[in-house]
Amino acid sequence: MNFQIVRYMLGYVCYFEAGFLMLPFLVGLIYREFHAGVSFLVIAALCVLLGLLFTAKQPRDKRMYTKEGLVTVALCWIVLSILGALPFWISREIPKYVDALFETVSGFTTTGSSILTDVEAMSHACLFWRSFTHWVGGMGVLVFILAILPNKGGAFMNLMKAESPGPSVSKLVPRLRDTALYLYGIYMGMTAIELVLLLLGGMPLFDALALTMGTAGTGGFAVKNSGVADYTVYQQAVITVFMILFGVNFNTYFLLVKKKPKQALMSEEVLTYLGIIAISVLVITFNVMPMFPNAFQAFHHTAFQVGSIITTTGFSTTDFNLWPPLAKTILMILVFVGACAGSTGGGIKVSRIVIMIKGIRKEIKMLLHPRSVDKVRMDGRPVEHEVVRSVNVYLAIYILLFVVSLLIVTLDEKDLVTNFTSVAVTLNNIGPGLEVVGPTGNFSSFSALSKLVLCFDMLAGRLELFPLLMLFVPSAWTRSTARPLSGKSIKGIVKKVGGRGNHVQ
Amino acid sequence: MNFQIVRYMLGYVCYFEAGFLMLPFLVGLIYREFHAGVSFLVIAALCVLLGLLFTAKQPRDKRMYTKEGLVTVALCWIVLSILGALPFWISREIPKYVDALFETVSGFTTTGSSILTDVEAMSHACLFWRSFTHWVGGMGVLVFILAILPNKGGAFMNLMKAESPGPSVSKLVPRLRDTALYLYGIYMGMTAIELVLLLLGGMPLFDALALTMGTAGTGGFAVKNSGVADYTVYQQAVITVFMILFGVNFNTYFLLVKKKPKQALMSEEVLTYLGIIAISVLVITFNVMPMFPNAFQAFHHTAFQVGSIITTTGFSTTDFNLWPPLAKTILMILVFVGACAGSTGGGIKVSRIVIMIKGIRKEIKMLLHPRSVDKVRMDGRPVEHEVVRSVNVYLAIYILLFVVSLLIVTLDEKDLVTNFTSVAVTLNNIGPGLEVVGPTGNFSSFSALSKLVLCFDMLAGRLELFPLLMLFVPSAWTRSTARPLSGKSIKGIVKKVGGRGNHVQ
Repeated sequence: MNFQIVRYMLGYVCYFEAGFLMLPFLVGLIYREFHAGVSFLVIAALCVLLGLLFTAKQPRDKRMYTKEGLVTVALCWIVLSILGALPFWISREIPKYVDALFETVSGFTTTGSSILTDVEAMSHACLFWRSFTHWVGGMGVLVFILAILPNKGGAFMNLMKAESPGPSVSKLVPRLRDTALYLYGIYMGMTAIELVLLLLGGMPLFDALALTMGTAGTGGFAVKNSGVADYTVYQQAVITVFMILFGVNFNTYFLLVKKKPKQALMSEEVLTYLGIIAISVLVITFNVMPMFPNAFQAFHHTAFQVGSIITTTGFSTTDFNLWPPLAKTILMILVFVGACAGSTGGGIKVSRIVIMIKGIRKEIKMLLHPRSVDKVRMDGRPVEHEVVRSVNVYLAIYILLFVVSLLIVTLDEKDLVTNFTSVAVTLNNIGPGLEVVGPTGNFSSFSALSKLVLCFDMLAGRLELFPLLMLFVPSAWTRSTARPLSGKSIKGIVKKVGGRGNHVQ
Repeated sequence: MNFQIVRYMLGYVCYFEAGFLMLPFLVGLIYREFHAGVSFLVIAALCVLLGLLFTAKQPRDKRMYTKEGLVTVALCWIVLSILGALPFWISREIPKYVDALFETVSGFTTTGSSILTDVEAMSHACLFWRSFTHWVGGMGVLVFILAILPNKGGAFMNLMKAESPGPSVSKLVPRLRDTALYLYGIYMGMTAIELVLLLLGGMPLFDALALTMGTAGTGGFAVKNSGVADYTVYQQAVITVFMILFGVNFNTYFLLVKKKPKQALMSEEVLTYLGIIAISVLVITFNVMPMFPNAFQAFHHTAFQVGSIITTTGFSTTDFNLWPPLAKTILMILVFVGACAGSTGGGIKVSRIVIMIKGIRKEIKMLLHPRSVDKVRMDGRPVEHEVVRSVNVYLAIYILLFVVSLLIVTLDEKDLVTNFTSVAVTLNNIGPGLEVVGPTGNFSSFSALSKLVLCFDMLAGRLELFPLLMLFVPSAWTRSTARPLSGKSIKGIVKKVGGRGNHVQ
C-alpha cells in the first residue's frame, strides 16, 4: 500500500469538503441563522487545517494501484461523512454524534434515511447541507474533484490521464477528466431544468433547491415533515419525471447530446428499466385504486412511489406502509432492483439483473446443447466473462453483507419487517422502509451499534461493496508493491469514482 | 427429445408407485380401516394399469441424453405426486384434490408443510402414507429404482452402467447402481437404528415408524396435532440427533463404512455444517433462556428447532413463532442455508455457501493481486470452475423463482411475513414458516393458485431447480438429437437421481 498517495488524496478531499461547507454557511448568513452558520464555518476551517496537514508533504511515490484506488475511495467517503457530520453536532441541532453521522452518511450516499423526528425544526443551513450532500454524493465526490482540478501532474494525473478501459460497450470519451466533465455537465444541466420547472410551478426557492438536489442525487431528504405530500400535483409530477430521468444510465444522455438518438434509445438496460416501471405502476395502480378518490389520484401517487423506490430516491407523497400486501411486496422488490448502472441511483442495478437472467438462459442452453459456445450479450455486443463473474460475486457479497447486518440490527428486538427493510433500504440507498422505518417513521430508535452498521451498509451500497470490503482485508494494508495501474485496474477505479459502477462499460 | 424413453421410465415409476401404495393398504388392513385401505388398493391398481400402458411398447431408441434425464426426473416426481394424492382424495380424508396434491408433494419433496388442520382425525393408512412419502422422497425415487432393479439392459443400463463422473473429490464407487445400493443401504441402516432407539424409549410402534421416516427423509410430517411436543425428552433428543445426522453428506458415512474415519471427518462441508449448528444453538439458547424454566430446557428445545430447520425437517416441539426476533431471524437464515449436499436435507446447501464465500475471497485476492492465479479449493482439492459457475447460476435462478412465487402468493393478501416465509419454507423443503404458516398454523387458507405455485416450489427445491425449469424450455421438447450421454451429462443425471445433488462431487 502506498500510504503517501492515499494521505495526499485525503488532503484534497478535506479542501473540497471545506469548500462544500461554505455553501450552508452562506445559507446561514442569508437566513440570519448565525449559530448554525458559524458551526459550518468552524468545521470548514478544520477541514482546511486537515487538508494542509495531509498535503504538507508531497508523496514521493505518486503511483496509484488498484488497492490504493479502492482504499482511497472508501476512506474519502468516510472522512467526508465524519467531518460533514460535525456541524450538525456542534450546532446542537442533532445532539448525538452518531445520529449526525447517520444523517450525513445517509446524505452523501443518497440514501435519505433519517433519524430526525422533526425536520421543520432544523435551520435552513442544516437542511441545505443535508440536501447538498445528496447532490454531491449522487454523481460522486471524486468525479467532482477530477472534473474541477486542472491537470497538474502527480497522483491525480494517474487517474486523470488514464485512458478509458479497453473493450468498452459505451465509453464516453477517451480521457478520464473529460468523462468526468461531461458527466457533471449533464448532471448540472438536468438539475437546472428541474429547478426551473419547480419554480415555474410556484414552489418556494429554498424548497425547490432542496428537492431538486434530493431528486438529482436520488437521495430523498425533504424539508417538510410531510415529505413531498403537501406540494401540488404539478410539482409532484415534475419530481416523478425527474426521479425516473436521474435513474437512467448517463451514457444515454451523452449519446443524446452527441446526437445519436437511435443508439441512445436502444440500450437494453434503459428499456428494461422503463419496462419495469411501466408494469409496476400498472399493477400497483389497480391494487391501490380503492384507497384513492379516483383513478388519476391512484396513478399519480403510484407513479411517484414507484419512481421514488426504483431510483432509490425515497421521497414519498403518501404512507405506502398502509398499502395492500401486493403493492408493498412489489415496492420491496423494486428496492432491490434499483436504477440503471451509470445513473445516480443505487440498488443492485437493472444491468446486473439483466446479465444475471441472461446468464441463466445461457446455462440452460448449455445443459441442452453441451457443445454450444455462447456468450451473454448486451446491446448486441458480447459481455466479457469477467463481467458476468463479477456480477455473480457482487450478488454473493451482497447477500452475505445483508445477512450479517440483519443479524446485528435484529439485536435491537424490533419486528422482522422493520429489521429486514431497514437493512434493505440502507444497503440499496433508498431511504424509508416499512413499519417502524416506514415513510412516516424514522431510524432514531435504533441502537448506536445498529446505526453504525446501517452507516456501513449505506456506504457499501453507494460504493458498490468492494472499496468498503477492502478496508477489512489485512493484505491490502501491507506495503508490498503491486503492478502499475493497467487498463483493467483503472476500469475498477473509474467504476468506483465515476458515479455508480457501470458494469457493462 | 427421445419421448419413448421418457414414457418408458414413467411406466416403471408407475409400477413402483403401485408397490409403495400397497404398504398403506396393509396398514389399513392392520388397523381395520377398510375404507382408506381400499382407496390405496384402487389407486395401486390404476398405477399398474398406467404402468402396463406406458411400458407396453419397448422404446426403439434407448439412449438417454441430458435433457431426457432432466425431463424424466421432473415428470416422474410430478406423476408420483399426482397419483399419490389420489387415495387422500377418493377416501375423502382430504376433500379437495388440490389440498391432497399439496400434501403429497410436500411428502415426496420432504417438505412437511401441511394443509391439514387436524392430523389426528386421519386414518392410520393415510398417516403412514404421508410419512412413507418422506422416506422415499428423502433418498430419491429413481435411486431406489436403480438400487432395486437388476441390470437388464435398455434405457436403465444407460443410467446404471454409466461410470461416475470424471474428476471427483469423493465419488463412492465406480458404478452407478452400486452407488445407489450403498446409499440406500446406509439410509436403511440409519433408519433402523433410529426406530429401535425410539422404541426403546417407549414410543408406540406406529408413531416411532412415522417419525423415523419423517426424520430420515428430513420431511417433517408428524402424527399428532401437537407435532413432536408431547413426546418425552429422550425421544425428542433421539430425533434431534438423527435429524442432524441425516443432514450430513452421505459420503461421510460411506467413508466411515469403508473405515476411513480421518477422511470422513475432514470434510469441510460437514465441519461447517456442524459449526453453524453449534453457534446457532449457543446464541439462540441464550436468547430464549427467559422463556424456559431452566437452561437445559432452553438448550433442549433450541437444539431440536435448530436441527429441525437447518436439516429442513420441520418438526417442532415448541411454537418458535413466539420466540424473540433474534432467534426467529437466525432460524429464518438457517431456512436458506439448508443441510449438506448429498444428504436427504434441502435448502441451498452448506457446500454451495462455502463455495460462494470462497469465491468472494478469491475475487478479492484477484483485485489485490491481479496476476495471481488461484482456484477455489474444497477439502484441499481445486473446485472446477464449472462448479463455481453453476453455484452462482443456481443462486440466480433461486432468487428469480423466489421473487416470482412471492408475487403470486402475495395475491392472497396475507401479511408480508407469512408470504415470505411460505415461499421460503416450501422452496427450501422445510415445512412450517412464521405467522399464519407457523408451527401451530398450516397452509390450508391459501388459494388453489398459491398452493399450486408452492407445490412447484417444493418440487423445484427438492430437484434443485433445473429439472423443473427444463419443462418450460420449448427447445427441450423438440425431437432434435443431442450428443450421447457423456461423463459430464451423466454427472447431471446422477446429481438429480442420486439424492440431493452433491455439487462438490
